[in-house]
Amino acid sequence: MPGATAVVIDVIRATSTIVEALASGARAVYPTLSSDEAIRLVNSLGREDTLLCGERKGLRIEGFDLGNSPLEFTPERVADKRLVMSTTNGTRAFLASEDADRVVAASLLNLSAVSLTVRESDRLVFVCAGKEDRFSLDDALCAGLIIEKLSNAEDAEVQLDDASKAAVALAKAYPVEPQLLSQTAAGAALVKVGLGADLERCADVDRYSLVPEMHERIIRLPDDV
Amino acid sequence: MPGATAVVIDVIRATSTIVEALASGARAVYPTLSSDEAIRLVNSLGREDTLLCGERKGLRIEGFDLGNSPLEFTPERVADKRLVMSTTNGTRAFLASEDADRVVAASLLNLSAVSLTVRESDRLVFVCAGKEDRFSLDDALCAGLIIEKLSNAEDAEVQLDDASKAAVALAKAYPVEPQLLSQTAAGAALVKVGLGADLERCADVDRYSLVPEMHERIIRLPDDV
Repeated sequence: MPGATAVVIDVIRATSTIVEALASGARAVYPTLSSDEAIRLVNSLGREDTLLCGERKGLRIEGFDLGNSPLEFTPERVADKRLVMSTTNGTRAFLASEDADRVVAASLLNLSAVSLTVRESDRLVFVCAGKEDRFSLDDALCAGLIIEKLSNAEDAEVQLDDASKAAVALAKAYPVEPQLLSQTAAGAALVKVGLGADLERCADVDRYSLVPEMHERIIRLPDDV
Repeated sequence: MPGATAVVIDVIRATSTIVEALASGARAVYPTLSSDEAIRLVNSLGREDTLLCGERKGLRIEGFDLGNSPLEFTPERVADKRLVMSTTNGTRAFLASEDADRVVAASLLNLSAVSLTVRESDRLVFVCAGKEDRFSLDDALCAGLIIEKLSNAEDAEVQLDDASKAAVALAKAYPVEPQLLSQTAAGAALVKVGLGADLERCADVDRYSLVPEMHERIIRLPDDV
């Protein structure tokens, strides 16, 4: 990680939700590893302008203000708020990237913006959150789409390792369409708990052109850093 | 693993070499984790009909009888011999599979035979050896080709997880051809140490129709078990 730019990806749903929240005017997102840690942090930040957000098995944690559905993070709910987020896989991916020189959040919602932002980096590491330490098709696809854009850029000199080559092949094999995410394990699990509507938003390629960055465990838009 | 059939894959080169060795009439292969363990085991088995085989960084370990090149394991060298093998990634993959109900060795050399052998299994786990804990394109491709055969079989009722879907997409994206393996990290590393000729043999799809199985850390052909 040291010397690299880490591109953290959790399409379903942490990085999609973070992009959505910041697009809706949230001031910052604080990822935490557990709901207890989230509650402690929200208490120390002060409840007046901080919301407690998080999910377990896809659903909002009882007593929390918001879950982890991008559709919940509207300007009405989150503008000017700080958001403390407890998610399982996404948070772990951010904390695993802490030693990188730079940490950005990527999703299908902002992939072109990410590829423009990171293209000057000497070394990129894609941190795909997965699902309980297992491979997730949606995250690998998103990585592949970004790598493809970087490779196709003019004057690009890109060297790919085996995993990156595989991700690009996946991106070519699975064109992004509304039904795509429901074919993934994470997507199917969401449909099962009644949150299938999230998948359409998570698959809305390049809806936004912003790139959240994490510094000292706080995720913001660069202008706000 | 318990209840499952483990399909261990290390295309470059451990499982290719094991298939080749048993095709050449070797009696059994004993995978070990280190060269010290290999030397201890060969001494306890007796040197008269046992060969010491293994590689570090691709090359034969000094003082060992054979390296890890499939081309070395000819009938003249290995018929009726027991082979103690120390390889880095392949051996670890076999030992990680010990709790499975059944453990088979797969490579491009025997993939159709493997798919016929395992098609009755309720649950398959593909254990791709990779390279120093990293993803290897060649192993994932081989898994994808086997899964594709299983899915295409008549009356097949196959459920795939995300990683298996990805492997199938890879198998479709990268048709096996002589140059294919040199594009992988493991293949490029072999070319660098002068062992590029191995890659052509490792890519010889269905050269053999045998399926090695491991029982109690000994790999044999089922008839010999």
